[in-house]
Amino acid sequence: MNPFIKASAAALEAARQARARIRSGYNKPTAGMAPGMTQCNMISLPRDWAFDFLLYAQRNPKSCPVLDVIEAGGFHTALAQEADLRVDIPRYRVWERGQLVDETTNASALWAKHPDLVTFLIGCSFTFETPLREAGIEIRHITDGCNVPMYRTHQQCRPAGRLQGELVVSMRPIAAERVTDAVIISGRFPAVHGAPVHVGDPARLGIRDIMQPDFGDPVRIEPGEIPVFWACGVTPQAAVMRSGVPFALSHAPGYMFITDVPDSAWQEG
Amino acid sequence: MNPFIKASAAALEAARQARARIRSGYNKPTAGMAPGMTQCNMISLPRDWAFDFLLYAQRNPKSCPVLDVIEAGGFHTALAQEADLRVDIPRYRVWERGQLVDETTNASALWAKHPDLVTFLIGCSFTFETPLREAGIEIRHITDGCNVPMYRTHQQCRPAGRLQGELVVSMRPIAAERVTDAVIISGRFPAVHGAPVHVGDPARLGIRDIMQPDFGDPVRIEPGEIPVFWACGVTPQAAVMRSGVPFALSHAPGYMFITDVPDSAWQEG
Repeated sequence: MNPFIKASAAALEAARQARARIRSGYNKPTAGMAPGMTQCNMISLPRDWAFDFLLYAQRNPKSCPVLDVIEAGGFHTALAQEADLRVDIPRYRVWERGQLVDETTNASALWAKHPDLVTFLIGCSFTFETPLREAGIEIRHITDGCNVPMYRTHQQCRPAGRLQGELVVSMRPIAAERVTDAVIISGRFPAVHGAPVHVGDPARLGIRDIMQPDFGDPVRIEPGEIPVFWACGVTPQAAVMRSGVPFALSHAPGYMFITDVPDSAWQEG
Repeated sequence: MNPFIKASAAALEAARQARARIRSGYNKPTAGMAPGMTQCNMISLPRDWAFDFLLYAQRNPKSCPVLDVIEAGGFHTALAQEADLRVDIPRYRVWERGQLVDETTNASALWAKHPDLVTFLIGCSFTFETPLREAGIEIRHITDGCNVPMYRTHQQCRPAGRLQGELVVSMRPIAAERVTDAVIISGRFPAVHGAPVHVGDPARLGIRDIMQPDFGDPVRIEPGEIPVFWACGVTPQAAVMRSGVPFALSHAPGYMFITDVPDSAWQEG
């Protein structure tokens, strides 16, 4: 992150208002909220699993780019100092032994019950949607006001300790003549998944039906558009599922944490 | 790392021969050995300290760029598959409660005594010495056949868990008219410390006497040359000292682990 790139007062205010709205019960996907401000994936694990997870992220940086780590018990992040990670995400998922057991809009009680949670904030591809749109590339799920489609692939991540699992990807249909631009522009943001992991052939990733995503909503693919796949910060949830982690807490896919850091702070080169 | 950049057969053979020589007792600094092949810093800590250290590295990527992590008990690395980390470093340092208690040329017995060591291989600025020299920039400690000078600074790293400590830097005197080139060329290698952290004023880093390095050997600074400082992979040892880690094993500064990966594999952009 480039710490010298600061958000404008108006953008900061938009991020604060979005979090306030979420804290008071807003329960929808966050794509398009507080435009230009970085949104994150969240995964919280007991202290005993923290090394395995941080190593998993280190070995799979494209799908699990770590933006911040909050040590055991903490719920404040340098990415948004006034925020409270227990209540500032619209929808949380609760995992036990790798099974999704509950969803909630307020994780305070869970944090109290599991006082040694280490929390990881992971980059999200929403961050490069701003520069893609500025370059005139349509983002279908924003146009249509729905959640981005996400898919579990059959491509395995590098395991770490007790953790293993498959790569999860997000998909955006891109006009064929803009695919190059989308690759180059997103490639400038390696801290938030960077360039696509795959272009054009869902079957090669093990995706059977592009209209039936594993998370999020299906989106139209118009004639002349190519499905483009980016590594997705839901990958840690797939590892939790696959590895039978005794307890974990995460955001719900597409229901992200909104920070005070502008998207542009992650641009490199 | 770019996995498509492979070493030549001759370079691989040179790395293997260097390790064989080290394994049979060679006990000097490794600068200039197996030119063009990546050399690494090593730090091994008990499993209980592994998360704190990996987080320390994640929070201080410039001084602690992680090239590989070997899980508890292991001594083989993907960076040199035939190597044995217990014997392939010319000189090891043994740390107890933050104190240097011993040096050895063979760490097999220590590994047997501490079966849960997690081992981190950290990038080394030797990697960008090859392209610096190819650009006609003299590397004084290679010219003079001595160890690179290294200094503990008064600049604190970001703490992580129980770990804290100061930044350690290496120094190379660079002709004033080549400082820009040295910055640009080393900046292309972010995985091995990247661009300098400081140019020109040792006092601003808290270095009292440039001719009395904390590790390695002093080197001549000729008229017209500027001392240029890079973040150094000895920084983890400073954290071990400062934080009273119960047990740790490391390389001795300048006595590095030689891999099968070419330096050029770390170049970006």
